[in-house]
Amino acid sequence: MQLSGTLSQLIEALRCLPGIGPKSAQRIAFHLLERDREGGSQLGQSLTKAMQVIGHCQTCRTFCEEPECSLCQNIKRQDSRLLCVVESPTDVLAIEQTGQYTGLYFVLMGHLSPLDGIGPNEIGLDVLERRLSDGNIDEVILATNPTVEGEATAHFISELCQKYDVLASRIAHGMPVGGELDLVDGMTLMHAFSGRKAIT
Amino acid sequence: MQLSGTLSQLIEALRCLPGIGPKSAQRIAFHLLERDREGGSQLGQSLTKAMQVIGHCQTCRTFCEEPECSLCQNIKRQDSRLLCVVESPTDVLAIEQTGQYTGLYFVLMGHLSPLDGIGPNEIGLDVLERRLSDGNIDEVILATNPTVEGEATAHFISELCQKYDVLASRIAHGMPVGGELDLVDGMTLMHAFSGRKAIT
Ligand SMILES: [Zn+2]
Ligand SMILES: [Zn+2]
Repeated sequence: MQLSGTLSQLIEALRCLPGIGPKSAQRIAFHLLERDREGGSQLGQSLTKAMQVIGHCQTCRTFCEEPECSLCQNIKRQDSRLLCVVESPTDVLAIEQTGQYTGLYFVLMGHLSPLDGIGPNEIGLDVLERRLSDGNIDEVILATNPTVEGEATAHFISELCQKYDVLASRIAHGMPVGGELDLVDGMTLMHAFSGRKAIT
Repeated sequence: MQLSGTLSQLIEALRCLPGIGPKSAQRIAFHLLERDREGGSQLGQSLTKAMQVIGHCQTCRTFCEEPECSLCQNIKRQDSRLLCVVESPTDVLAIEQTGQYTGLYFVLMGHLSPLDGIGPNEIGLDVLERRLSDGNIDEVILATNPTVEGEATAHFISELCQKYDVLASRIAHGMPVGGELDLVDGMTLMHAFSGRKAIT
């Protein structure tokens, strides 16, 4: 006995989800069929549409359905000469939630990872270089993650900035506000010490 | 700044998957958009189709695209007077993989759970009763799970069988073959003792 063709296909297709093996795929398919067909149909339509219509903003590379995203089109920001470089669209969301930054963004959609074949062009540094060469940016704030890859990527971009006489700055690393000293990792603690400021 | 409408909808729709919260939904959406658009499109189509065309076999209730499943339509089995009652289509797969059982099945698609509003009709016992009343079944093998709900469901069905003078049997519980005594739970061990057989 075999599962019906359509059901087998669904279970196979669910394996494209990260971390979902054959057993989980079966469990998900049965769950949707037994308990949430409406949710399953809705998800089917959303996936089909999203994979078709979502592209990248031509200016900042974030996910976007239009040629240019709402943030890049925002007239209040267009004159900003600050450009914040982040790894992912979620980083933009996190920064926007603080409500403090009013400059522009550039989203790498990843970080340099030569061993995985991800070089400068794969993270859009050709597009970024064009923006730097335009002369409209005074400062690039490097807000890539404080990981080995994020640091290497920030370093690479800072050299690109030098070439075009654009100031490059790196976001500060240190103790998270409200964090407890003895619960923070050693690398963060090291950054907190080396980045210490005189109390004035 | 907000994520584009289609992307927000996709993230929301992914939450219908069991165990997926807002963060995981975002991670999955970004993964598909960045790394596996083909897989995402394929999944979208499979879901849409599956939710539309997959129904239940009118005879045994398992998931099926036709009015009746291939197992119920199998002429080699149609004369069998054995009916195995299981909770889920995956149980049918597991039993079929042993290659030893050649009878028919009835799939409850769940178990009795009065507190969740799942009574006899919700697990198809009206359909099962019609089959018992036909007089074509000699024995019902109760292969529901060895859980509290599974046992209660088996007990309920055994009383239904009595009403129609059909023999009801329960699958044996005990030590899994190859299992280690000290690793097995107490309930299983108890079953293994009470179900002991004389060595002949
Ligand atoms: Zn943009
Ligand atoms: Zn059937």
